[in-house]
Amino acid sequence: MLTMEMLQNAKEVLNGVARKTPLFQSSYINPDANVYIKCENMQVTGSFKLRGAYFKTASLTDEEAKKGVIACSAGNHAQGVALAAQKKGIPAVICMPEAAPLAKVEATRGYGAEVVLVKGVYDDAAAKAAELQKEKGYTFLHPFNDDYVMAGQGTVGLEIMEEVADAEVVLVPIGGGGLISGVAFAIKQINPNCKVYGVQASGAPSMLNSIKDGKIETLESVSTMADGIAVKQPGDLTFAMCQKYVDGIVTVTEDEIAKAILLLIEKHKMVAEGAGAVSVAAAMHNKVDIKGKKTVCVISGGNVDVNILDRIIDKALQANGRIVKLSVMMMDKPGQLTQLLTAIAEVGANILNVTHDRMVQDIAVSTCIVDIVAETRNKEHADKMMEEIKSKGFEVL
Amino acid sequence: MLTMEMLQNAKEVLNGVARKTPLFQSSYINPDANVYIKCENMQVTGSFKLRGAYFKTASLTDEEAKKGVIACSAGNHAQGVALAAQKKGIPAVICMPEAAPLAKVEATRGYGAEVVLVKGVYDDAAAKAAELQKEKGYTFLHPFNDDYVMAGQGTVGLEIMEEVADAEVVLVPIGGGGLISGVAFAIKQINPNCKVYGVQASGAPSMLNSIKDGKIETLESVSTMADGIAVKQPGDLTFAMCQKYVDGIVTVTEDEIAKAILLLIEKHKMVAEGAGAVSVAAAMHNKVDIKGKKTVCVISGGNVDVNILDRIIDKALQANGRIVKLSVMMMDKPGQLTQLLTAIAEVGANILNVTHDRMVQDIAVSTCIVDIVAETRNKEHADKMMEEIKSKGFEVL
Repeated sequence: MLTMEMLQNAKEVLNGVARKTPLFQSSYINPDANVYIKCENMQVTGSFKLRGAYFKTASLTDEEAKKGVIACSAGNHAQGVALAAQKKGIPAVICMPEAAPLAKVEATRGYGAEVVLVKGVYDDAAAKAAELQKEKGYTFLHPFNDDYVMAGQGTVGLEIMEEVADAEVVLVPIGGGGLISGVAFAIKQINPNCKVYGVQASGAPSMLNSIKDGKIETLESVSTMADGIAVKQPGDLTFAMCQKYVDGIVTVTEDEIAKAILLLIEKHKMVAEGAGAVSVAAAMHNKVDIKGKKTVCVISGGNVDVNILDRIIDKALQANGRIVKLSVMMMDKPGQLTQLLTAIAEVGANILNVTHDRMVQDIAVSTCIVDIVAETRNKEHADKMMEEIKSKGFEVL
Repeated sequence: MLTMEMLQNAKEVLNGVARKTPLFQSSYINPDANVYIKCENMQVTGSFKLRGAYFKTASLTDEEAKKGVIACSAGNHAQGVALAAQKKGIPAVICMPEAAPLAKVEATRGYGAEVVLVKGVYDDAAAKAAELQKEKGYTFLHPFNDDYVMAGQGTVGLEIMEEVADAEVVLVPIGGGGLISGVAFAIKQINPNCKVYGVQASGAPSMLNSIKDGKIETLESVSTMADGIAVKQPGDLTFAMCQKYVDGIVTVTEDEIAKAILLLIEKHKMVAEGAGAVSVAAAMHNKVDIKGKKTVCVISGGNVDVNILDRIIDKALQANGRIVKLSVMMMDKPGQLTQLLTAIAEVGANILNVTHDRMVQDIAVSTCIVDIVAETRNKEHADKMMEEIKSKGFEVL
């Protein structure tokens, strides 16, 4: 059972280990609300997970600690546990799916943990962790379904209340539910009038479904760029906490998540991972009524592989009409390409890439296809460019 | 003449307008020093420039203010002046070179300024601003060579001293010299033992040359990704301040800047522009003796176009041996490509892209070229992959 004493204790234990992360006002996320962002992507290890992992590790009995700890994670929990164990001076074994990005594997090793790469997906890594735990007697650290872990994450809520005690809405990402359990508990104790909403990716709504049905539901599969909250099944402890303390759960789409990540990069110069940005996405797209309200979005983490980040930015730029990719069919004769590029330049769009391909099958020999990537200001500008191209007689595929 | 009274006044005037930006400890930048980062990339408008622009604007006489202000800038100063004028309720005209990224133009317009896009480069925009000033009587706001501007930037120094009064080294980017003039002045008044070093891009060392020669030198051209500090000539005021208060100036290369930007993204989840990251680059590469010292790197800004950011990350990943691009010549017969890809997979490298091109000229008809982009852990891993490929008899071009 979570208590305020546990949270206060967690806060003291975390002092000097976890950062009190910045809380900024943002005038970009939603013009109709007074929005703040709580930046756990700036936390040591790049996510809030350190808080729970460290408090749990610090709370182990000497006997449990001596055995060493084991965890299973593709990313954030891995780094949190690894650093917590390093600081405590005990061995840590982390089972990670083989496909985990090299950067995350290296970061986890960098904190001194032994990484076991397991063939297959997350579930295979979890099975391996269970096997190793039995075999070697390690102490297993659950990523969310644990009171100490929830209490550690709840210190995020304490920090929010220290800075904006009169917050009216707090938006929190939900994967397994550890973060929101601690945060909602903390906030409801301090300011019961403040609403706490959870945000999930529409491709992984396990807590939403469970709350709707009044019992724990398991998704057959999850599909979202927000890998940090792609959880098939909530825990029993976190489910009960959400039932009791959370005012509602909403979902956001992949395009909405990508746009939130792009906004945070461009306007706030910070990198959020998909899971971290869902709260911002919900505020941007009015998934909860925040009009005129003092609203805090918790950005839970920033651990996104740079190669994937690049693809997310690209997706967001397209969704915002700032990058347009189009294929144009044209007669394969001199002057045609020049005419097309002139049409694009005349509306003030900036050409980033041109591919002129004569080897496409299934079209007449006298025609060819040109692929264009152009930079435009916004959707209206992109539409204007398309009209201009069509008005010159080109066929856009 | 700068005085501490001016700086204190600037601090009061900026209260509620500019943010007190976060200062974090970093264990990643240099393992042998105790490094902190002062995050002016998290400043409103994305750079420190708001401080000087706003304090200057606030210090205008009513008559000067009534005329409206004009400035010339490709980026940060533009946004600082635009927001300062908006807050003061006076008109602002910003001349920007036509090639300025659309995102920066839009951001400047977003703060209510009239943007005049000028054909040509920065110098042409500056000429246009001078012409408009004469014609319309606007008040010109210089980006750095102005006591009020320097005093505004100097509040960064006050904030550093508030948090780490016992800093031993402070590293500050230098373009025109406005930021370091204010910061060095502030720090030397408060803690004269603290050394203040300037950092320039090796492709734009105008202040370094000027200090060396004891007189203002003008570069014929500048070439660096750090566009925010690509300044051909320092001001007379900033030059005199640097002579008096700055302990030394060092330079960093383009690869070093790119690596610093990548480190800040991956380890601190924050976006710095090239100019903003030079201080971190200098600390990473021991350009100044910081061994065992409490060192603060000022990250001056984060306004980098997302499309350019992508290219910088790519450059850094290659420089770190984490992305390898290679071309392999092979016999154009079945099984060859499979054998190559197997060799790469066997050393644990991850293939990101393969282009198999039969249409390259100047090679025998029976051979073809395959371009590979592979993800590797580091330089050693990349070297191991290359050896493996060569040992299988493939010719790497």
